[in-house]
Amino acid sequence: MKLEDLPIRDDLRGRTPYGAPQIDVPVRLNTNENPYGPSASLVAELAEAVRGVTADLNRYPDRDALDLRRELAGYLGHGLAVEQVWAANGSNEVLQQILQAFGGHGRAAMGFEPSYSMHPIITTGASTEWISGAREDDFGIDPGKAVAAIEEHRPDVVFLTSPNNPTGTALDPEVIARIVEAAPGMVVVDEAYFEFARTGTPSALTLLPDNPRLIVTRTMSKAFAMAGTRLGYLAAHPAVVEALLLVRLPYHLSTLTQTAARVALAHRAELLGAVDELRAERDAVVDWLRARGLKVADSDANFVLFGLFPDRRAVWQGLLERGVLIREVGPPGWLRVSIGTTEEMAAFRAALEEILSTTPS
Amino acid sequence: MKLEDLPIRDDLRGRTPYGAPQIDVPVRLNTNENPYGPSASLVAELAEAVRGVTADLNRYPDRDALDLRRELAGYLGHGLAVEQVWAANGSNEVLQQILQAFGGHGRAAMGFEPSYSMHPIITTGASTEWISGAREDDFGIDPGKAVAAIEEHRPDVVFLTSPNNPTGTALDPEVIARIVEAAPGMVVVDEAYFEFARTGTPSALTLLPDNPRLIVTRTMSKAFAMAGTRLGYLAAHPAVVEALLLVRLPYHLSTLTQTAARVALAHRAELLGAVDELRAERDAVVDWLRARGLKVADSDANFVLFGLFPDRRAVWQGLLERGVLIREVGPPGWLRVSIGTTEEMAAFRAALEEILSTTPS
Repeated sequence: MKLEDLPIRDDLRGRTPYGAPQIDVPVRLNTNENPYGPSASLVAELAEAVRGVTADLNRYPDRDALDLRRELAGYLGHGLAVEQVWAANGSNEVLQQILQAFGGHGRAAMGFEPSYSMHPIITTGASTEWISGAREDDFGIDPGKAVAAIEEHRPDVVFLTSPNNPTGTALDPEVIARIVEAAPGMVVVDEAYFEFARTGTPSALTLLPDNPRLIVTRTMSKAFAMAGTRLGYLAAHPAVVEALLLVRLPYHLSTLTQTAARVALAHRAELLGAVDELRAERDAVVDWLRARGLKVADSDANFVLFGLFPDRRAVWQGLLERGVLIREVGPPGWLRVSIGTTEEMAAFRAALEEILSTTPS
Repeated sequence: MKLEDLPIRDDLRGRTPYGAPQIDVPVRLNTNENPYGPSASLVAELAEAVRGVTADLNRYPDRDALDLRRELAGYLGHGLAVEQVWAANGSNEVLQQILQAFGGHGRAAMGFEPSYSMHPIITTGASTEWISGAREDDFGIDPGKAVAAIEEHRPDVVFLTSPNNPTGTALDPEVIARIVEAAPGMVVVDEAYFEFARTGTPSALTLLPDNPRLIVTRTMSKAFAMAGTRLGYLAAHPAVVEALLLVRLPYHLSTLTQTAARVALAHRAELLGAVDELRAERDAVVDWLRARGLKVADSDANFVLFGLFPDRRAVWQGLLERGVLIREVGPPGWLRVSIGTTEEMAAFRAALEEILSTTPS
């Protein structure tokens, strides 16, 4: 009995599971994690909070996660209220719920690629057609062309990623506004990396009041340094949240997740405290890569896309052999490195320098 | 802007969110929770385990949850190995992943009702047609009729619930074996309440070695008294687990969930320790209800379905007014009460006695 002998859905045949290799190496710069774990005092507080709720773990969690959503609304600001915020196990689950409510068979979702590779996977996993739009050579989106593509294909859901993964490109809210205006259905702006954007970059949250078909998604996995907690969330019109209540699995968010996320939110000053430093590291590595003669995409995120390598696999492998794990992702010839600590970035530069000086270009 | 103005999927229109009312009352007997929370020493151990992993919460969890799955396999026994076990956020997510892999547009799933009402909801949420088969008057499944229904409809997935929710009915493995033989696709035996079955009731796990299209699902929400942790799991052929890897959202299971579930498994002697007592309470309340002249379904679970009431809503409301929350679920005229502590069941009996003695039947 093999996988291909089972009656799986036809469109899954021949696929391989999504996911970067989980390899235990000294320097992990492959999944855009924040390199700084919580402080000892935050660890203690989180353990204490868990102790406080564990005696009731025989009971189901608050199905609507109201306290957490209220506090997420407070963090986001922009006058948002609890009924405009929704949360799930990672923004992947948030996106899947959006597709379950607004996509499905006979409907289509469109994104502008290269972008987050889970968007098409979640889309097709929700029996929704994926339409691939294109980004420009600088990885930006040309609003005129995007509007034309949307008018041609009439997608039910449009994905915009800002800052974009794996390119780091932030979108101007005016571009988003023009796309929302043209889109016949829902528009999702995936802001997983928003906190890393250069100062002054406005969030798509500014567009929410006038656009009930706009959804802005966020995560606590990146700037918040809580990837292990798996907490994604969104802000939208209250009617959008009502729609998601129709498709969410009841009690989807455990008591532990709700508790840990609330503690993290209460300590956001600490957790987000490394963001400035990571931005400085990012800008430094961009400068270094460019000085080294490489092509580098402008980045508003905690990673940098660089290239172009005739054999990117060899460069990725060479870094891995030197204890540095980065990600082989993006258009052919490019590689993506997450921003780690100062020491980790020094190790990355040293390893890459060795490879570049021994490899014929 | 209202929900109905949004471009949601047509089959969601007019629906209301699934879920029992979450009402704060003295006696909660409505969601089949185990009334006994963890001991003080287990609470301390769980907090300590969380403290141990919190320093790394900036990192993503083990995407494949290998340690947890290995330990779940050890708990299940039957010679199961890690590659035959899968886990997710509650058995609802496990079931959704099964539908995503083996269902979808143009495919159908069949269940025998009355049964767990999330089965049709998850099925249609995964764009899969729901076919409703029937149970007998005693809530059992007649294998001959079931096989005939399966041969007529040729469903891609068959759901069997044993012990069944909300009726408490366990299935004979011979019935399951005949259905597996007849089914053209996958057969899911939902054993969420298995640990409460009367001694000697065999698990469908005994059928796994000969049936690669059989899936047995379990949960830690009921007997394990861990509803707040949200951990569901399954055992099946390794190829089935490979199929689920194609549809699972990466990193779906948080570090906290994996950690808490492993601590709970290590302390299963304590957590499952109340099962015998709950079974005795169940049998006592069945006897009491029958002595009171009511109709009661035989129960192998931690709840009892009883009736018949011309106005079941009035009985449910009367109990609620007396501080006892049960569930208005099942065929017309029936109500379901979860098994609580001895004191809670006494409160339930006293409240019901009051209602029965004042209500004309």
